[in-house]
Amino acid sequence: MGNKRLKLGVASYSLRKFPLAEAIQMTKRCGVEYIALKDFHLPLTATKEEIQTAAKMIADAGLHLVGCGVVYMPKDEAFIRNVFEYAKTANMPVIIASPDHDALPICNQMVKEYDIKIAIHNHGPGDSKYPLATDAYRLVKDLDPRMGVCPDIGHIKRIGGDPVAEIKAVFDRMHDMHIKDVSAAEPAGYTCEIGRGVIDIPEVLRTLLKLGYKGHVALEYEKDAEDPLPGMAESFGYLRGVLDVI
Amino acid sequence: MGNKRLKLGVASYSLRKFPLAEAIQMTKRCGVEYIALKDFHLPLTATKEEIQTAAKMIADAGLHLVGCGVVYMPKDEAFIRNVFEYAKTANMPVIIASPDHDALPICNQMVKEYDIKIAIHNHGPGDSKYPLATDAYRLVKDLDPRMGVCPDIGHIKRIGGDPVAEIKAVFDRMHDMHIKDVSAAEPAGYTCEIGRGVIDIPEVLRTLLKLGYKGHVALEYEKDAEDPLPGMAESFGYLRGVLDVI
Repeated sequence: MGNKRLKLGVASYSLRKFPLAEAIQMTKRCGVEYIALKDFHLPLTATKEEIQTAAKMIADAGLHLVGCGVVYMPKDEAFIRNVFEYAKTANMPVIIASPDHDALPICNQMVKEYDIKIAIHNHGPGDSKYPLATDAYRLVKDLDPRMGVCPDIGHIKRIGGDPVAEIKAVFDRMHDMHIKDVSAAEPAGYTCEIGRGVIDIPEVLRTLLKLGYKGHVALEYEKDAEDPLPGMAESFGYLRGVLDVI
Repeated sequence: MGNKRLKLGVASYSLRKFPLAEAIQMTKRCGVEYIALKDFHLPLTATKEEIQTAAKMIADAGLHLVGCGVVYMPKDEAFIRNVFEYAKTANMPVIIASPDHDALPICNQMVKEYDIKIAIHNHGPGDSKYPLATDAYRLVKDLDPRMGVCPDIGHIKRIGGDPVAEIKAVFDRMHDMHIKDVSAAEPAGYTCEIGRGVIDIPEVLRTLLKLGYKGHVALEYEKDAEDPLPGMAESFGYLRGVLDVI
């Protein structure tokens, strides 16, 4: 099945109304093997033991823990160091983040010190720091190669960007990715089941395969917070259907 | 979305643990517009008023009621006539059925009298009457053209048949169709989320498009009776993903 061609997983923001144990089971039911944790499921203030317990729960369930986030980072070295310690304890290879611009030098230092990547997440309309993935890319491309981006194709589409062009433009620094579909290419567009919206998902997937993307593709499904599983399952079904024939 | 290329719908056996009102809402949540009712949702003994109420609920929800079944039919004219009256009252164009062989002459008379089609459903291993769709086809091909079949590709696969070859062989009498995926091409194979099993679903869909199939394609999802929606949604997602790129 399509899973073999890309590393499909869940950004646990999709499951924010459920405790970690349930979020793990729902992720498994979607038939994927990767998960990235939002702080709802593992607070940034967790103790080392709590972090290790959560990481073990995920591993015991047969899932790969690929990162955390989105983590908002002020220019605060102690705060940022704590996030890297958290990621290190959990054995996460990447932190999906939205650092203040003036926090980037600290992030650049930390990725070297911890050998853990940063993937800056773009939030589209309303995000003054990183509306597009290319806005983040411009600020990290001359920093350490572990400083990268996590394009969110939904927010790219909502602000009138071209998801495929953005992916191509940032590809050499693409350390993670958020996949979703949106109802309209405008700020008022909202997440919908993949395949029902306006994003050309087959072209996005063809692009990832053509570029040889080896990273994680996380579904961030904002819709149906109280009952997200059907929409998530439909979205993964759609992705696998496309992947099985392109 | 892929819905535009085929009439995807739900065989309500998938939702047998839920009352009709919920089954309608779950069908709508799957993003499809067609439903065929199993007797759990509308008993064959229902009064005319009950049948009309159910049909109105479905129409009011924006769904098309495409048929009933699977209905098992003994050689009993009064019983079979009642099924046709039920279908007529509900304005169903087709009855998905498993008539005893000696009931076929009665069925052949009724399709003429009521101008409602019969689509004989094959049940694979364990079905002494119609293991394959072609077994049904052989018995109806010289009867009235309204006597036809409803290939169930899961049962075809479970008995070692070739779903694509069967569809081609019975196509001129294909009055409905049950789509699903199964875990193995053997009697012990069970229904799974479409895309996770062993049936070449893209080739099935390509065949339907190539043959110009205008009929209904019903998901009959036997798995997860108590909580079928995620698996059904994933299955429709897969179908739409494939349909969007073939």
